[in-house]
Amino acid sequence: MNNIYIIGVGLIGGSMALDIKSINANARIFGIDSNASHLDEALKLNIIDEKATYNNLADADLVVLSIPVDKAVSELPKVLDAVSDQTLVFDVGSTKLPVCKAVEQHDKRRNFLATHPIAGTEFSGPKAAIHDLFQKKTNIICEVEKTTFKLQEKALQLFSDLGMRIRYMNPEAHDKHIAYVSHLSHISSFMLGKTVIEKEKNERDIFDMAGSGFESTVRLAKSSPAMWTPIFKQNKNNVIETLDEYINNLKQFKTLMESDDFDEIYNEMQNTNHIKDILNGIA
Amino acid sequence: MNNIYIIGVGLIGGSMALDIKSINANARIFGIDSNASHLDEALKLNIIDEKATYNNLADADLVVLSIPVDKAVSELPKVLDAVSDQTLVFDVGSTKLPVCKAVEQHDKRRNFLATHPIAGTEFSGPKAAIHDLFQKKTNIICEVEKTTFKLQEKALQLFSDLGMRIRYMNPEAHDKHIAYVSHLSHISSFMLGKTVIEKEKNERDIFDMAGSGFESTVRLAKSSPAMWTPIFKQNKNNVIETLDEYINNLKQFKTLMESDDFDEIYNEMQNTNHIKDILNGIA
Repeated sequence: MNNIYIIGVGLIGGSMALDIKSINANARIFGIDSNASHLDEALKLNIIDEKATYNNLADADLVVLSIPVDKAVSELPKVLDAVSDQTLVFDVGSTKLPVCKAVEQHDKRRNFLATHPIAGTEFSGPKAAIHDLFQKKTNIICEVEKTTFKLQEKALQLFSDLGMRIRYMNPEAHDKHIAYVSHLSHISSFMLGKTVIEKEKNERDIFDMAGSGFESTVRLAKSSPAMWTPIFKQNKNNVIETLDEYINNLKQFKTLMESDDFDEIYNEMQNTNHIKDILNGIA
Repeated sequence: MNNIYIIGVGLIGGSMALDIKSINANARIFGIDSNASHLDEALKLNIIDEKATYNNLADADLVVLSIPVDKAVSELPKVLDAVSDQTLVFDVGSTKLPVCKAVEQHDKRRNFLATHPIAGTEFSGPKAAIHDLFQKKTNIICEVEKTTFKLQEKALQLFSDLGMRIRYMNPEAHDKHIAYVSHLSHISSFMLGKTVIEKEKNERDIFDMAGSGFESTVRLAKSSPAMWTPIFKQNKNNVIETLDEYINNLKQFKTLMESDDFDEIYNEMQNTNHIKDILNGIA
Protein backbone atom coordinates (compact mmCIF):
# COMPACT_ATOMS: atom_id res chain seq x y z
CA MET A 1 0.00 0.00 0.00
CA ASN A 2 1.84 3.09 -1.25
CA ASN A 3 -0.82 5.74 -1.78
CA ILE A 4 -1.98 6.56 1.72
CA TYR A 5 -4.72 9.11 2.36
CA ILE A 6 -5.15 10.43 5.89
CA ILE A 7 -8.47 12.19 6.41
CA GLY A 8 -8.01 14.21 9.60
CA VAL A 9 -4.32 14.92 10.24
CA GLY A 10 -4.55 15.13 14.03
CA LEU A 11 -3.12 13.04 16.86
CA ILE A 12 -4.24 9.63 15.58
CA GLY A 13 -4.13 10.22 11.81
CA GLY A 14 -0.85 12.10 12.06
CA SER A 15 0.81 9.49 14.27
CA MET A 16 -0.30 6.76 11.89
CA ALA A 17 1.16 8.71 8.94
CA LEU A 18 4.51 9.05 10.73
CA ASP A 19 4.70 5.30 11.44
CA ILE A 20 3.57 4.27 7.95
CA LYS A 21 6.38 6.38 6.48
CA SER A 22 8.89 4.65 8.76
CA ILE A 23 7.60 1.21 7.79
CA ASN A 24 7.35 1.81 4.07
CA ALA A 25 9.83 4.14 2.37
CA ASN A 26 7.72 4.06 -0.81
CA ALA A 27 4.61 5.31 0.93
CA ARG A 28 3.33 8.68 -0.21
CA ILE A 29 1.10 10.35 2.35
CA PHE A 30 -1.77 12.56 1.17
CA GLY A 31 -3.58 14.70 3.72
CA ILE A 32 -7.22 15.78 3.70
CA ASP A 33 -8.59 18.01 6.45
CA SER A 34 -11.43 20.50 6.78
CA ASN A 35 -9.04 22.61 8.88
CA ALA A 36 -6.72 24.32 6.35
CA SER A 37 -4.19 25.41 8.98
CA HIS A 38 -3.91 21.86 10.31
CA LEU A 39 -3.16 20.72 6.77
CA ASP A 40 -0.44 23.38 6.38
CA GLU A 41 0.98 22.39 9.74
CA ALA A 42 0.99 18.69 8.85
CA LEU A 43 2.86 19.48 5.62
CA LYS A 44 5.40 21.63 7.48
CA LEU A 45 5.93 18.90 10.07
CA ASN A 46 6.49 16.33 7.27
CA ILE A 47 3.56 14.30 8.51
CA ILE A 48 2.05 14.42 5.01
CA ASP A 49 3.77 14.76 1.64
CA GLU A 50 0.93 16.46 -0.18
CA LYS A 51 -2.50 18.00 0.31
CA ALA A 52 -5.39 16.26 -1.44
CA THR A 53 -9.18 16.21 -1.82
CA TYR A 54 -11.84 13.52 -2.20
CA ASN A 55 -11.35 13.85 -5.99
CA ASN A 56 -7.99 12.09 -5.59
CA LEU A 57 -9.33 9.16 -3.54
CA ALA A 58 -9.74 6.86 -6.56
CA ASP A 59 -5.92 6.43 -6.48
CA ALA A 60 -5.81 5.48 -2.81
CA ASP A 61 -4.51 2.11 -1.61
CA LEU A 62 -5.44 3.00 1.95
CA VAL A 63 -7.67 5.67 3.48
CA VAL A 64 -7.44 6.29 7.23
CA LEU A 65 -10.53 8.14 8.46
CA SER A 66 -9.42 9.86 11.68
CA ILE A 67 -11.96 12.60 12.33
CA PRO A 68 -14.52 13.16 15.14
CA VAL A 69 -17.10 10.37 15.22
CA ASP A 70 -20.04 12.56 14.10
CA LYS A 71 -18.08 13.61 11.02
CA ALA A 72 -16.96 10.02 10.39
CA VAL A 73 -20.57 8.88 10.11
CA SER A 74 -21.39 11.49 7.48
CA GLU A 75 -18.06 11.37 5.61
CA LEU A 76 -17.49 7.62 5.40
CA PRO A 77 -20.22 6.99 2.76
CA LYS A 78 -18.73 9.75 0.59
CA VAL A 79 -15.25 8.30 1.01
CA LEU A 80 -16.47 4.84 -0.02
CA ASP A 81 -18.23 6.42 -3.01
CA ALA A 82 -14.91 7.93 -4.12
CA VAL A 83 -12.47 5.03 -3.64
CA SER A 84 -11.69 2.14 -6.00
CA ASP A 85 -12.70 -1.49 -5.47
CA GLN A 86 -9.15 -2.23 -4.26
CA THR A 87 -8.96 0.50 -1.61
CA LEU A 88 -8.91 -0.33 2.10
CA VAL A 89 -10.71 2.23 4.25
CA PHE A 90 -10.65 2.11 8.03
CA ASP A 91 -11.85 4.47 10.71
CA VAL A 92 -10.35 4.86 14.20
CA GLY A 93 -13.28 6.26 16.19
CA SER A 94 -14.15 5.63 19.82
CA THR A 95 -17.73 4.52 19.00
CA LYS A 96 -18.34 1.67 16.59
CA LEU A 97 -22.08 1.01 16.22
CA PRO A 98 -23.01 4.32 14.51
CA VAL A 99 -20.23 4.09 11.92
CA CYS A 100 -21.05 0.44 11.15
CA LYS A 101 -24.73 1.31 10.79
CA ALA A 102 -23.94 4.28 8.54
CA VAL A 103 -22.48 2.03 5.82
CA GLU A 104 -24.24 -1.29 6.36
CA GLN A 105 -26.09 -0.93 3.06
CA HIS A 106 -23.25 0.74 1.17
CA ASP A 107 -22.13 -0.89 -2.10
CA LYS A 108 -18.51 -0.71 -0.94
CA ARG A 109 -19.15 -1.94 2.64
CA ARG A 110 -16.58 -4.68 2.00
CA ASN A 111 -13.84 -2.06 1.48
CA PHE A 112 -14.36 -0.77 5.02
CA LEU A 113 -12.92 -2.06 8.30
CA ALA A 114 -14.23 -0.64 11.60
CA THR A 115 -11.34 -0.22 14.07
CA HIS A 116 -10.60 1.47 17.36
CA PRO A 117 -6.92 1.73 18.26
CA ILE A 118 -6.81 2.21 22.05
CA ALA A 119 -4.06 4.78 21.86
CA GLY A 120 -3.77 8.48 22.31
CA THR A 121 -2.82 11.28 24.63
CA GLU A 122 -4.82 14.20 26.00
CA PHE A 123 -3.45 16.40 23.19
CA SER A 124 -4.81 16.97 19.69
CA GLY A 125 -3.93 18.38 16.27
CA PRO A 126 -0.93 17.63 13.98
CA LYS A 127 1.56 18.86 16.62
CA ALA A 128 0.34 16.07 18.90
CA ALA A 129 1.32 13.37 16.38
CA ILE A 130 4.14 11.14 17.63
CA HIS A 131 6.10 8.11 16.43
CA ASP A 132 5.34 4.67 17.90
CA LEU A 133 2.03 5.76 19.45
CA PHE A 134 0.51 2.37 18.61
CA GLN A 135 3.31 0.11 19.87
CA LYS A 136 1.91 -2.58 22.19
CA LYS A 137 -1.54 -1.02 22.11
CA THR A 138 -4.80 -2.87 21.49
CA ASN A 139 -6.74 -2.36 18.27
CA ILE A 140 -10.38 -3.40 18.45
CA ILE A 141 -11.86 -4.55 15.16
CA CYS A 142 -15.61 -4.83 14.69
CA GLU A 143 -17.59 -6.81 12.10
CA VAL A 144 -14.38 -8.15 10.55
CA GLU A 145 -16.43 -10.63 8.51
CA LYS A 146 -17.98 -7.77 6.55
CA THR A 147 -14.63 -6.75 5.05
CA THR A 148 -13.11 -8.37 1.94
CA PHE A 149 -10.61 -11.02 3.01
CA LYS A 150 -7.76 -9.49 0.97
CA LEU A 151 -8.27 -6.06 2.55
CA GLN A 152 -8.55 -7.62 6.03
CA GLU A 153 -5.14 -9.18 5.41
CA LYS A 154 -3.59 -5.87 4.38
CA ALA A 155 -5.05 -4.15 7.43
CA LEU A 156 -3.81 -6.84 9.82
CA GLN A 157 -0.33 -6.66 8.31
CA LEU A 158 -0.28 -2.90 8.84
CA PHE A 159 -1.52 -3.13 12.43
CA SER A 160 1.09 -5.78 13.11
CA ASP A 161 3.78 -3.51 11.61
CA LEU A 162 2.55 -0.69 13.85
CA GLY A 163 3.04 -3.00 16.85
CA MET A 164 -0.62 -3.48 17.76
CA ARG A 165 -2.42 -6.54 19.12
CA ILE A 166 -5.92 -7.22 17.82
CA ARG A 167 -9.21 -7.92 19.62
CA TYR A 168 -12.40 -8.74 17.73
CA MET A 169 -15.77 -7.60 19.11
CA ASN A 170 -19.21 -6.76 17.83
CA PRO A 171 -19.92 -3.01 17.76
CA GLU A 172 -22.64 -3.20 20.43
CA ALA A 173 -20.28 -4.86 22.93
CA HIS A 174 -17.49 -2.44 22.03
CA ASP A 175 -19.66 0.63 22.68
CA LYS A 176 -21.00 -0.77 25.94
CA HIS A 177 -17.65 -1.70 27.47
CA ILE A 178 -15.66 1.24 26.16
CA ALA A 179 -18.15 3.49 27.98
CA TYR A 180 -16.79 2.02 31.25
CA VAL A 181 -13.07 1.90 30.55
CA SER A 182 -12.75 5.10 28.55
CA HIS A 183 -15.74 7.40 28.23
CA LEU A 184 -16.56 7.44 31.97
CA SER A 185 -12.92 8.21 32.84
CA HIS A 186 -13.10 11.31 30.72
CA ILE A 187 -16.28 12.55 32.40
CA SER A 188 -14.97 11.82 35.90
CA SER A 189 -11.84 13.77 35.04
CA PHE A 190 -13.65 16.73 33.45
CA MET A 191 -16.03 17.00 36.41
CA LEU A 192 -13.17 16.73 38.91
CA GLY A 193 -11.41 19.58 37.10
CA LYS A 194 -14.65 21.59 37.06
CA THR A 195 -15.32 21.04 40.78
CA VAL A 196 -11.87 22.21 41.80
CA ILE A 197 -11.70 25.15 39.38
CA GLU A 198 -15.12 26.41 40.52
CA LYS A 199 -14.15 26.21 44.15
CA GLU A 200 -10.74 27.69 43.80
CA LYS A 201 -11.33 30.28 41.07
CA ASN A 202 -10.36 33.15 43.34
CA GLU A 203 -7.46 31.36 44.93
CA ARG A 204 -5.06 30.36 42.20
CA ASP A 205 -2.31 29.83 44.77
CA ILE A 206 -4.25 26.80 45.94
CA PHE A 207 -3.00 24.87 42.94
CA ASP A 208 0.45 25.01 44.52
CA MET A 209 -1.07 22.41 46.85
CA ALA A 210 -1.90 20.07 44.01
CA GLY A 211 0.47 17.18 43.50
CA SER A 212 1.01 14.45 40.96
CA GLY A 213 -2.10 12.61 42.18
CA PHE A 214 -4.38 15.47 41.23
CA GLU A 215 -2.51 15.91 37.98
CA SER A 216 -3.02 12.27 37.08
CA THR A 217 -6.75 12.23 37.81
CA VAL A 218 -7.51 15.44 35.91
CA ARG A 219 -5.19 14.78 32.97
CA LEU A 220 -8.05 13.76 30.68
CA ALA A 221 -9.81 17.08 31.37
CA LYS A 222 -7.34 18.55 28.89
CA SER A 223 -8.98 16.53 26.10
CA SER A 224 -10.61 18.08 23.04
CA PRO A 225 -14.34 18.95 23.39
CA ALA A 226 -14.68 18.71 19.58
CA MET A 227 -13.61 15.07 19.72
CA TRP A 228 -15.46 14.09 22.90
CA THR A 229 -18.85 15.79 22.53
CA PRO A 230 -19.88 13.61 19.53
CA ILE A 231 -18.56 10.48 21.29
CA PHE A 232 -20.83 11.15 24.29
CA LYS A 233 -23.71 11.94 21.90
CA GLN A 234 -23.30 8.76 19.88
CA ASN A 235 -22.83 6.58 22.95
CA LYS A 236 -25.43 8.40 25.04
CA ASN A 237 -27.30 5.43 26.53
CA ASN A 238 -24.22 3.46 27.51
CA VAL A 239 -22.51 6.52 28.96
CA ILE A 240 -25.58 7.48 31.01
CA GLU A 241 -25.64 3.95 32.44
CA THR A 242 -22.00 4.22 33.55
CA LEU A 243 -22.63 7.69 34.99
CA ASP A 244 -25.59 6.37 37.00
CA GLU A 245 -23.47 3.64 38.54
CA TYR A 246 -20.56 5.98 39.20
CA ILE A 247 -22.81 8.58 40.87
CA ASN A 248 -24.44 5.84 42.98
CA ASN A 249 -21.06 4.59 44.16
CA LEU A 250 -20.00 8.13 45.09
CA LYS A 251 -23.28 8.71 46.96
CA GLN A 252 -22.83 5.45 48.83
CA PHE A 253 -19.28 6.47 49.79
CA LYS A 254 -20.63 9.80 51.04
CA THR A 255 -23.30 8.01 53.09
CA LEU A 256 -20.64 5.80 54.66
CA MET A 257 -18.69 8.91 55.62
CA GLU A 258 -21.77 10.66 57.03
CA SER A 259 -22.57 7.61 59.15
CA ASP A 260 -18.92 7.33 60.30
CA ASP A 261 -18.66 3.82 58.89
CA PHE A 262 -14.95 4.06 58.27
CA ASP A 263 -14.49 0.29 58.56
CA GLU A 264 -16.62 -0.12 55.47
CA ILE A 265 -14.75 2.72 53.74
CA TYR A 266 -11.53 0.81 54.44
CA ASN A 267 -13.08 -2.33 52.92
CA GLU A 268 -14.29 -0.45 49.84
CA MET A 269 -10.80 0.84 49.17
CA GLN A 270 -9.17 -2.51 49.87
CA ASN A 271 -11.57 -4.27 47.50
CA THR A 272 -10.75 -1.77 44.78
CA ASN A 273 -7.00 -2.05 45.36
CA HIS A 274 -6.85 -5.11 43.13
CA ILE A 275 -7.14 -2.68 40.22
CA LYS A 276 -3.33 -2.92 40.60
CA ASP A 277 -3.29 -6.43 39.17
CA ILE A 278 -5.71 -5.47 36.43
CA LEU A 279 -3.64 -2.46 35.43
CA ASN A 280 -0.47 -4.54 35.31
CA GLY A 281 -1.99 -6.04 32.20
CA ILE A 282 -2.35 -2.62 30.57
CA ALA A 283 0.91 -0.78 31.13
CA MET B 1 21.38 17.26 62.74
CA ASN B 2 23.07 13.86 62.89
CA ASN B 3 20.80 11.64 64.97
CA ILE B 4 17.75 11.19 62.81
CA TYR B 5 14.77 9.16 63.97
CA ILE B 6 12.19 8.10 61.39
CA ILE B 7 8.93 6.91 62.96
CA GLY B 8 7.16 5.03 60.18
CA VAL B 9 9.66 3.76 57.58
CA GLY B 10 7.27 3.79 54.61
CA LEU B 11 7.14 5.77 51.36
CA ILE B 12 7.52 9.25 52.89
CA GLY B 13 9.66 8.46 55.94
CA GLY B 14 11.85 6.09 53.96
CA SER B 15 12.35 8.51 51.08
CA MET B 16 13.27 11.25 53.52
CA ALA B 17 15.80 8.94 55.19
CA LEU B 18 17.42 8.16 51.83
CA ASP B 19 17.78 11.86 50.96
CA ILE B 20 19.02 12.87 54.41
CA LYS B 21 21.78 10.27 54.11
CA SER B 22 22.78 11.69 50.73
CA ILE B 23 22.86 15.24 52.08
CA ASN B 24 24.68 14.48 55.31
CA ALA B 25 27.28 11.71 55.40
CA ASN B 26 27.40 11.96 59.19
CA ALA B 27 23.71 11.32 59.63
CA ARG B 28 22.77 8.16 61.47
CA ILE B 29 19.24 7.00 60.72
CA PHE B 30 17.26 5.22 63.42
CA GLY B 31 14.00 3.53 62.49
CA ILE B 32 10.92 3.05 64.64
CA ASP B 33 7.90 1.20 63.26
CA SER B 34 5.01 -0.80 64.75
CA ASN B 35 5.39 -3.14 61.78
CA ALA B 36 8.43 -5.34 62.58
CA SER B 37 8.79 -6.68 59.07
CA HIS B 38 8.83 -3.15 57.63
CA LEU B 39 11.61 -2.33 60.04
CA ASP B 40 13.62 -5.40 58.94
CA GLU B 41 13.00 -4.50 55.33
CA ALA B 42 14.12 -0.88 55.87
CA LEU B 43 17.31 -2.13 57.48
CA LYS B 44 17.97 -4.56 54.63
CA LEU B 45 17.37 -1.84 52.05
CA ASN B 46 19.83 0.48 53.91
CA ILE B 47 17.08 3.00 54.46
CA ILE B 48 17.83 2.95 58.19
CA ASP B 49 21.10 2.19 59.98
CA GLU B 50 19.58 0.87 63.18
CA LYS B 51 16.30 -0.08 64.83
CA ALA B 52 15.25 2.02 67.82
CA THR B 53 12.42 2.65 70.29
CA TYR B 54 10.93 5.71 71.99
CA ASN B 55 13.42 5.11 74.84
CA ASN B 56 16.19 6.34 72.50
CA LEU B 57 14.41 9.54 71.44
CA ALA B 58 16.18 11.73 74.04
CA ASP B 59 19.27 11.53 71.77
CA ALA B 60 17.41 12.65 68.66
CA ASP B 61 18.32 15.82 66.76
CA LEU B 62 15.38 15.27 64.42
CA VAL B 63 12.29 13.08 64.57
CA VAL B 64 10.24 12.61 61.40
CA LEU B 65 6.76 11.35 62.23
CA SER B 66 5.53 9.65 59.07
CA ILE B 67 2.67 7.38 60.11
CA PRO B 68 -1.07 7.38 59.29
CA VAL B 69 -2.77 10.56 60.56
CA ASP B 70 -4.84 8.82 63.26
CA LYS B 71 -1.67 7.30 64.71
CA ALA B 72 0.18 10.62 64.42
CA VAL B 73 -2.40 12.32 66.64
CA SER B 74 -1.98 9.74 69.40
CA GLU B 75 1.80 9.22 69.04
CA LEU B 76 2.98 12.82 68.70
CA PRO B 77 2.38 13.75 72.39
CA LYS B 78 4.37 10.67 73.45
CA VAL B 79 7.17 11.58 71.05
CA LEU B 80 7.32 15.12 72.42
CA ASP B 81 7.39 13.70 75.95
CA ALA B 82 10.44 11.61 75.02
CA VAL B 83 12.60 14.12 73.12
CA SER B 84 15.03 16.72 74.46
CA ASP B 85 14.51 20.50 74.39
CA GLN B 86 16.78 20.72 71.35
CA THR B 87 14.99 18.12 69.22
CA LEU B 88 13.03 19.12 66.12
CA VAL B 89 9.96 16.98 65.50
CA PHE B 90 7.87 17.31 62.37
CA ASP B 91 4.98 15.29 60.96
CA VAL B 92 4.15 14.85 57.28
CA GLY B 93 0.42 14.05 57.37
CA SER B 94 -2.25 15.00 54.86
CA THR B 95 -4.47 16.63 57.52
CA LYS B 96 -3.13 19.41 59.73
CA LEU B 97 -5.83 20.63 62.10
CA PRO B 98 -6.14 17.44 64.22
CA VAL B 99 -2.39 17.09 64.74
CA CYS B 100 -2.02 20.77 65.65
CA LYS B 101 -4.94 20.50 68.09
CA ALA B 102 -3.47 17.32 69.62
CA VAL B 103 -0.40 19.17 70.91
CA GLU B 104 -1.58 22.76 71.31
CA GLN B 105 -1.23 22.53 75.10
CA HIS B 106 1.86 20.31 75.11
CA ASP B 107 4.87 21.58 77.07
CA LYS B 108 7.11 20.89 74.07
CA ARG B 109 4.75 22.37 71.43
CA ARG B 110 7.61 24.63 70.34
CA ASN B 111 9.70 21.59 69.35
CA PHE B 112 7.05 20.57 66.81
CA LEU B 113 6.55 21.77 63.23
CA ALA B 114 3.39 20.76 61.35
CA THR B 115 4.24 20.02 57.70
CA HIS B 116 2.69 18.39 54.65
CA PRO B 117 5.10 17.60 51.82
CA ILE B 118 2.94 17.31 48.68
CA ALA B 119 4.85 14.33 47.40
CA GLY B 120 4.24 10.65 47.04
CA THR B 121 3.23 7.85 44.74
CA GLU B 122 0.38 5.36 44.91
CA PHE B 123 2.73 2.83 46.54
CA SER B 124 3.54 2.31 50.21
CA GLY B 125 5.98 0.59 52.57
CA PRO B 126 9.81 0.73 52.71
CA LYS B 127 10.10 -0.73 49.18
CA ALA B 128 8.27 2.32 47.86
CA ALA B 129 10.94 4.70 49.24
CA ILE B 130 12.86 6.52 46.50
CA HIS B 131 15.60 9.13 46.21
CA ASP B 132 14.70 12.71 45.27
CA LEU B 133 10.98 12.26 45.93
CA PHE B 134 10.78 15.80 47.33
CA GLN B 135 12.68 17.64 44.57
CA LYS B 136 10.65 20.63 43.34
CA LYS B 137 7.68 19.65 45.46
CA THR B 138 5.70 21.96 47.73
CA ASN B 139 5.89 21.61 51.51
CA ILE B 140 3.02 23.22 53.38
CA ILE B 141 3.90 24.42 56.86
CA CYS B 142 1.18 25.28 59.38
CA GLU B 143 1.39 27.42 62.52
CA VAL B 144 5.07 28.14 61.90
CA GLU B 145 4.98 30.83 64.61
CA LYS B 146 4.39 28.15 67.25
CA THR B 147 7.80 26.51 66.63
CA THR B 148 11.04 27.73 68.23
CA PHE B 149 12.87 29.99 65.78
CA LYS B 150 16.09 27.92 65.91
CA LEU B 151 14.22 24.70 65.09
CA GLN B 152 12.27 26.47 62.30
CA GLU B 153 15.61 27.43 60.79
CA LYS B 154 16.90 23.86 60.92
CA ALA B 155 13.73 22.54 59.34
CA LEU B 156 13.80 25.12 56.53
CA GLN B 157 17.43 24.31 55.80
CA LEU B 158 16.56 20.61 55.53
CA PHE B 159 13.54 21.22 53.28
CA SER B 160 15.69 23.45 51.10
CA ASP B 161 18.36 20.72 50.91
CA LEU B 162 15.62 18.24 49.92
CA GLY B 163 14.69 20.59 47.05
CA MET B 164 11.30 21.71 48.36
CA ARG B 165 9.56 25.08 48.13
CA ILE B 166 7.59 26.25 51.15
CA ARG B 167 4.02 27.56 51.51
CA TYR B 168 2.67 28.77 54.86
CA MET B 169 -1.02 28.26 55.70
CA ASN B 170 -3.19 27.92 58.74
CA PRO B 171 -4.32 24.34 59.41
CA GLU B 172 -8.02 25.09 58.76
CA ALA B 173 -7.27 26.48 55.28
CA HIS B 174 -4.90 23.60 54.55
CA ASP B 175 -7.50 20.96 55.40
CA LYS B 176 -10.24 22.72 53.43
CA HIS B 177 -8.26 23.18 50.22
CA ILE B 178 -6.37 19.88 50.30
CA ALA B 179 -9.78 18.17 50.32
CA TYR B 180 -10.31 19.57 46.81
CA VAL B 181 -6.91 19.05 45.26
CA SER B 182 -6.01 15.74 46.88
CA HIS B 183 -8.62 13.94 48.96
CA LEU B 184 -11.42 14.23 46.37
CA SER B 185 -9.10 12.94 43.60
CA HIS B 186 -8.54 9.79 45.61
CA ILE B 187 -12.26 9.16 46.10
CA SER B 188 -13.07 9.86 42.44
CA SER B 189 -10.37 7.39 41.47
CA PHE B 190 -11.40 4.68 43.95
CA MET B 191 -15.05 4.95 42.90
CA LEU B 192 -14.13 4.88 39.20
CA GLY B 193 -12.15 1.70 39.81
CA LYS B 194 -15.04 0.23 41.79
CA THR B 195 -17.61 1.07 39.11
CA VAL B 196 -15.60 -0.57 36.37
CA ILE B 197 -14.56 -3.63 38.41
CA GLU B 198 -18.17 -4.25 39.49
CA LYS B 199 -19.42 -4.03 35.95
CA GLU B 200 -16.71 -6.07 34.37
CA LYS B 201 -16.05 -8.64 37.09
CA ASN B 202 -17.05 -11.52 34.83
CA GLU B 203 -15.34 -10.17 31.78
CA ARG B 204 -11.69 -9.70 32.60
CA ASP B 205 -10.83 -9.50 28.91
CA ILE B 206 -12.57 -6.15 28.87
CA PHE B 207 -9.55 -4.59 30.52
CA ASP B 208 -7.70 -5.19 27.27
CA MET B 209 -9.82 -2.28 26.10
CA ALA B 210 -8.51 0.03 28.78
CA GLY B 211 -5.85 2.49 27.69
CA SER B 212 -3.53 4.96 29.33
CA GLY B 213 -6.43 7.34 30.01
CA PHE B 214 -8.19 4.84 32.24
CA GLU B 215 -4.87 3.96 33.85
CA SER B 216 -4.20 7.58 34.70
CA THR B 217 -7.63 8.24 36.22
CA VAL B 218 -7.65 5.10 38.38
CA ARG B 219 -3.99 5.24 39.42
CA LEU B 220 -4.83 6.57 42.88
CA ALA B 221 -7.18 3.60 43.48
CA LYS B 222 -3.99 1.64 44.18
CA SER B 223 -3.41 3.76 47.30
CA SER B 224 -3.23 2.34 50.81
CA PRO B 225 -6.57 2.08 52.71
CA ALA B 226 -4.62 2.16 56.00
CA MET B 227 -3.27 5.59 55.09
CA TRP B 228 -6.42 7.02 53.49
CA THR B 229 -9.21 5.87 55.83
CA PRO B 230 -7.98 8.03 58.76
CA ILE B 231 -7.42 11.00 56.42
CA PHE B 232 -11.06 10.85 55.28
CA LYS B 233 -12.14 10.42 58.90
CA GLN B 234 -10.14 13.38 60.19
CA ASN B 235 -11.18 15.62 57.30
CA LYS B 236 -14.75 14.34 57.15
CA ASN B 237 -16.63 17.64 56.84
CA ASN B 238 -14.41 19.15 54.18
CA VAL B 239 -14.34 15.93 52.17
CA ILE B 240 -18.14 15.57 52.28
CA GLU B 241 -18.44 19.14 50.97
CA THR B 242 -16.18 18.35 47.99
CA LEU B 243 -18.07 15.10 47.35
CA ASP B 244 -21.39 16.98 47.33
CA GLU B 245 -20.12 19.41 44.72
CA TYR B 246 -18.53 16.66 42.62
CA ILE B 247 -21.71 14.55 42.68
CA ASN B 248 -23.79 17.62 41.74
CA ASN B 249 -21.55 18.37 38.79
CA LEU B 250 -21.79 14.76 37.59
CA LYS B 251 -25.59 14.81 37.96
CA GLN B 252 -25.78 18.03 36.00
CA PHE B 253 -23.64 16.51 33.25
CA LYS B 254 -25.96 13.52 33.15
CA THR B 255 -29.01 15.80 32.92
CA LEU B 256 -27.40 17.64 30.00
CA MET B 257 -26.87 14.31 28.26
CA GLU B 258 -30.42 13.15 28.95
CA SER B 259 -31.81 16.37 27.51
CA ASP B 260 -29.47 16.14 24.49
CA ASP B 261 -27.89 19.48 25.29
CA PHE B 262 -24.58 18.62 23.70
CA ASP B 263 -23.78 22.28 23.00
CA GLU B 264 -23.66 22.87 26.74
CA ILE B 265 -21.62 19.67 27.23
CA TYR B 266 -19.12 21.08 24.73
CA ASN B 267 -19.01 24.35 26.70
CA GLU B 268 -18.53 22.54 30.02
CA MET B 269 -15.54 20.67 28.64
CA GLN B 270 -14.09 23.75 26.97
CA ASN B 271 -14.38 25.75 30.19
CA THR B 272 -12.57 23.02 32.07
CA ASN B 273 -9.84 22.71 29.44
CA HIS B 274 -7.95 25.59 31.04
CA ILE B 275 -6.91 23.12 33.70
CA LYS B 276 -4.02 22.76 31.21
CA ASP B 277 -2.63 26.16 32.18
CA ILE B 278 -3.18 25.48 35.85
CA LEU B 279 -1.41 22.14 35.66
CA ASN B 280 1.56 23.66 33.84
CA GLY B 281 2.35 25.24 37.18
CA ILE B 282 2.43 21.83 38.88
CA ALA B 283 4.44 19.52 36.65
